Amino acid sequence: MSVTLEDARRVIAAAEKRADEIGQPMNIAVVDAGGNLVAHVRQDGAWIGSVNISINKAWTSKAFDIQTKDLGDNAQPNQQFYGIHATNGGKVAIFAGGVPLSRDGVVIGAVGVSGGSGEQDQTVAEAGAAAF
Amino acid sequence: MSVTLEDARRVIAAAEKRADEIGQPMNIAVVDAGGNLVAHVRQDGAWIGSVNISINKAWTSKAFDIQTKDLGDNAQPNQQFYGIHATNGGKVAIFAGGVPLSRDGVVIGAVGVSGGSGEQDQTVAEAGAAAF
Amino acid sequence: MSVTLEDARRVIAAAEKRADEIGQPMNIAVVDAGGNLVAHVRQDGAWIGSVNISINKAWTSKAFDIQTKDLGDNAQPNQQFYGIHATNGGKVAIFAGGVPLSRDGVVIGAVGVSGGSGEQDQTVAEAGAAAF
Amino acid sequence: MSVTLEDARRVIAAAEKRADEIGQPMNIAVVDAGGNLVAHVRQDGAWIGSVNISINKAWTSKAFDIQTKDLGDNAQPNQQFYGIHATNGGKVAIFAGGVPLSRDGVVIGAVGVSGGSGEQDQTVAEAGAAAF
Repeated sequence: MSVTLEDARRVIAAAEKRADEIGQPMNIAVVDAGGNLVAHVRQDGAWIGSVNISINKAWTSKAFDIQTKDLGDNAQPNQQFYGIHATNGGKVAIFAGGVPLSRDGVVIGAVGVSGGSGEQDQTVAEAGAAAF
Repeated sequence: MSVTLEDARRVIAAAEKRADEIGQPMNIAVVDAGGNLVAHVRQDGAWIGSVNISINKAWTSKAFDIQTKDLGDNAQPNQQFYGIHATNGGKVAIFAGGVPLSRDGVVIGAVGVSGGSGEQDQTVAEAGAAAF
Repeated sequence: MSVTLEDARRVIAAAEKRADEIGQPMNIAVVDAGGNLVAHVRQDGAWIGSVNISINKAWTSKAFDIQTKDLGDNAQPNQQFYGIHATNGGKVAIFAGGVPLSRDGVVIGAVGVSGGSGEQDQTVAEAGAAAF
Repeated sequence: MSVTLEDARRVIAAAEKRADEIGQPMNIAVVDAGGNLVAHVRQDGAWIGSVNISINKAWTSKAFDIQTKDLGDNAQPNQQFYGIHATNGGKVAIFAGGVPLSRDGVVIGAVGVSGGSGEQDQTVAEAGAAAF
């Protein structure tokens, strides 16, 4: 059981709708149960530096079955996972915008969003996840 | 002047249609004039090792304004570009499946396809490019 | 619309002039709208470790359409983008010296400077950007 | 004793002149005695994939005090240096376009050119080196 391309498109469409509402173009990525990319879109005008970050947020969220903002709280200096951002070849994102996609209580994918403030990325990712 | 997300979706839709016709699930990626990813999809069942390859084929095709299969001909042992596959941090793909997207004679993006034989990747990429 | 080589040379000449005034040899790099390098110079005596940093500052400034010192403020521990320096393969520079190059309100390139203190890098980058 | 920025600019100017004559826009890079970048230019319209290659050709040419095309002859399958292109983090370029810069019989830098056929890259690099 994993995220399908149809699932990913539904998640991305909902995320794009939210990004349009707040007026901030975004990169949106969805990964499957294996952490592998299913789909990605960069809305016109969204930051090119956020392509990688959106994919990394989605990967991180599935890799640790957690929202990246919650992982981030534990990854600050003097916290229990400080330094985790340098592991896994630099793929671990520790700031808001990555949200797990679950079915029947099991995380089977994740969505990652990058292109605005942490708050903006988070609301767009949550809108995507809600459509799953 | 560069590929937009709407352009990328039209290219990907045409490529997906062709992949369905030949019965081989594919990864399809589109980059813009700067070589940066605009959109990617992995059809259900497509190889996970081809996520990276599809993106690299699209990048390579734009980076050198050439089809990756033509670059590949020049990148064989004893040919003029032998060794190019090891440059650019390993992003240079030298086998079929990457096709430039041009407007008014200028390459402003590219599509990269990976998931089948070289011949299959190429026909799907060409179908995508034809829709541009 | 993107930075040309002629633009880049004008920016670099102005930056070099400022570096000479403050007596600190610098690396100066300019990237285009896609984040790709257009030109780089290392003044005689400038740090070799700053070649990469000048290019990364220029890339970062275009990749996120922001001055690197402003990104840096948001990338400190407990701030919203803490950890961003580890993304994009380590290409994200989060200290002063990267400044966007804009035309008609659109960022179409950036200049990155490295070779002195943060304050020195910043004043040289600003002098370069002012000549754009 | 090493290549100065003034030297690099003279080499690059001569190389650009030759590139203009043959009508092929090029990336041109110069490194010093330590293999570190002194200057780089990408002429308008030159391949973005060649930024890295021009720098790598210059580095390789100084790193082994040899023209990259000569190194390439020794780096083909079944030759004595086969596999060298995968060393040094992928920085070793084994095709034409990298030429050492010598003074009094000592290699104190190198020029690397990328943007056309092997023959075109070589003639532009040689024109640059001749101006040293």
